Amino acid sequence: MRTKICEMLGIEIPVFAFSHCRDVVVAASKAGGIGVFGAEMFTPEQFELELKWIEENIDGRPYGIDVIFPTTYQDMSAWKDASLEEVIPATHRDFVEDLLNKHSVAHLPEDEEEDMVRERLSRGRGTPVEAASMLEVAFKFAGVKLLVSAVGAPPREAVERAHRAGIKVGGMVGAVEHAQRQRDAGVDFVVAQGYEAGGHTGEIGTMVLTPSVVQAMGDFPVLAAGGIASGRQMAAAMAMGAQGVWCGSVWLPTVESDLLPEVKAKLLAAKSQDTLRTRAYTGKPARVLKSGWSDAWEAEGAPKPLMRPLQHLLSRPATKRIERARSKTLISTPVGQVVGQFRHELTVKQVYAEMISEFIDAVEGMTRLLES
Amino acid sequence: MRTKICEMLGIEIPVFAFSHCRDVVVAASKAGGIGVFGAEMFTPEQFELELKWIEENIDGRPYGIDVIFPTTYQDMSAWKDASLEEVIPATHRDFVEDLLNKHSVAHLPEDEEEDMVRERLSRGRGTPVEAASMLEVAFKFAGVKLLVSAVGAPPREAVERAHRAGIKVGGMVGAVEHAQRQRDAGVDFVVAQGYEAGGHTGEIGTMVLTPSVVQAMGDFPVLAAGGIASGRQMAAAMAMGAQGVWCGSVWLPTVESDLLPEVKAKLLAAKSQDTLRTRAYTGKPARVLKSGWSDAWEAEGAPKPLMRPLQHLLSRPATKRIERARSKTLISTPVGQVVGQFRHELTVKQVYAEMISEFIDAVEGMTRLLES
Repeated sequence: MRTKICEMLGIEIPVFAFSHCRDVVVAASKAGGIGVFGAEMFTPEQFELELKWIEENIDGRPYGIDVIFPTTYQDMSAWKDASLEEVIPATHRDFVEDLLNKHSVAHLPEDEEEDMVRERLSRGRGTPVEAASMLEVAFKFAGVKLLVSAVGAPPREAVERAHRAGIKVGGMVGAVEHAQRQRDAGVDFVVAQGYEAGGHTGEIGTMVLTPSVVQAMGDFPVLAAGGIASGRQMAAAMAMGAQGVWCGSVWLPTVESDLLPEVKAKLLAAKSQDTLRTRAYTGKPARVLKSGWSDAWEAEGAPKPLMRPLQHLLSRPATKRIERARSKTLISTPVGQVVGQFRHELTVKQVYAEMISEFIDAVEGMTRLLES
Repeated sequence: MRTKICEMLGIEIPVFAFSHCRDVVVAASKAGGIGVFGAEMFTPEQFELELKWIEENIDGRPYGIDVIFPTTYQDMSAWKDASLEEVIPATHRDFVEDLLNKHSVAHLPEDEEEDMVRERLSRGRGTPVEAASMLEVAFKFAGVKLLVSAVGAPPREAVERAHRAGIKVGGMVGAVEHAQRQRDAGVDFVVAQGYEAGGHTGEIGTMVLTPSVVQAMGDFPVLAAGGIASGRQMAAAMAMGAQGVWCGSVWLPTVESDLLPEVKAKLLAAKSQDTLRTRAYTGKPARVLKSGWSDAWEAEGAPKPLMRPLQHLLSRPATKRIERARSKTLISTPVGQVVGQFRHELTVKQVYAEMISEFIDAVEGMTRLLES
């Protein structure tokens, strides 16, 4: 099962494991696939500590990082010294306060909330400057063999610098046109991510997006993402011409995952219908597990979520409070529609083993079908 | 490539062709698949004429019919003698009038519009009574070998009567729970239809829905629908355990299709992004080709579409006017996200030939991959 993408990255199994959890990244690369560490939640200082830990534990296996290179973003430098009250409307602050009070979610101790907001306002998140500082960190580590652009085409300098360091570059896309733009920017492969996926995702289903991007890109390698968490789904993606698959949700309820036990329990009990695309977290449509938070924002009469990045300034401290309070009603996580398939807490290695075994069964079944 | 579903229906190719056009139905069955004729647009009298034509032209090949057995519906008997003015708010009538005037769409001659509405109000569409009269018609024709329930589980009497007449029964589903309900109602197979599909469709993508339904139903036959218009997509569906595929959109721009040339031209030029799920036609979310009509209803400040069946009372005469005027801006059709794949007007037979050839290539490619 060695595809072009396996040869490109020196891996055995073309299953990419996207995660914000370093333990998942390490376990995926050790299992013969490749872990891709999402930089988004970290400051550059935290990010460096995480990569250091990964390098020390990954036994020399290749791994990747996933960075947001935004094409459009809000310049927040003017708000450097602003308070939350000056940038978020009172209606929205009151709405959140009422919701959290209703569910008895306490405030964070002392100035922790204020500090979170201040840190975000002063540094600016999701900006080209931030992406560049994440890259500076990543280039220090020899094990980083892959850089993935989470949103939009990466800047040409970043691609060239990565290539000089022997790092391959991939780009996430949600439409055929984006794929062409990524190739023009110099990436080595694209990941076509369908509507079923968790987090920020587009409107085109994987069943349509994968073959469309494959067809448009000719020999250029394409991975499929969105709705893939089993060997049968992997076989489907590869039957449509994908060279491998990119999975995010399937690692969330694993043993290695650092999600709270309350979140894992919710994931293992959820059905596919229990996700929705909502602007309630970041201001951009992102697929998450339905919760009291998303219900409240989607309800008739709720304030309209603010534009990115303002909604995030509102939701981040709230999410922290909700997690600290372990509020079963309000707690959530980005996750795709595959959530309905999860039944047991497995190790990352077990997930890989089950995927491969089911993939082989699926292909053998197809071969028999053709002979019948 | 003979699956259980082929044996059940005596067909060679497990590709189902859903269409409101009798020529497509005939061509599909003759190509070795099976045409399934949608009853929805017809009165029982028209439906009988259509089936008569199909019987005379299909060379004894099996075909099916697709009927709506609604589980919930609006009893319109109280409105039997009502006028349009009495059931549709003036805001909505004026909104449509303004939109059509803006695009210079003329009224239908004399009482044609009034008659359309009257006919709908007096007879009640999408009701169990209507479904029963459609069935009475269908049972007169020996070539009908398949009855498909388009929405919800069919009544047990209908299933039993079909079975006594040697007719197999299938049911469309959009979620695992619906599949179990259909099986309990006595159907012989289910069609799991994903979010990508045209017309009324649910929220779960085909990539997730197909394997979930297959897994839940064990040995019970499952067809996949939504996002399937090529041999690669067919291979993907069958790799996930489907016994065959159900296609609707792919026949719309064929030579045999009776759609207006203006609609076919729009379909051949469209991208996958050019569809949306909207309540603007029937009051229930249905995927259609974006048009001036859907744009207007989705725009900020537009009236909220009425509940089913009222929105249909408003949109049906308007659609007729738009088609008569051949308004390139306003004209549309239900269609799935696969619309972006269409490039040429093919015959139904050519579509079948291309699907089979590509399916074989895809499976052979997978077999080689496993050996690599």
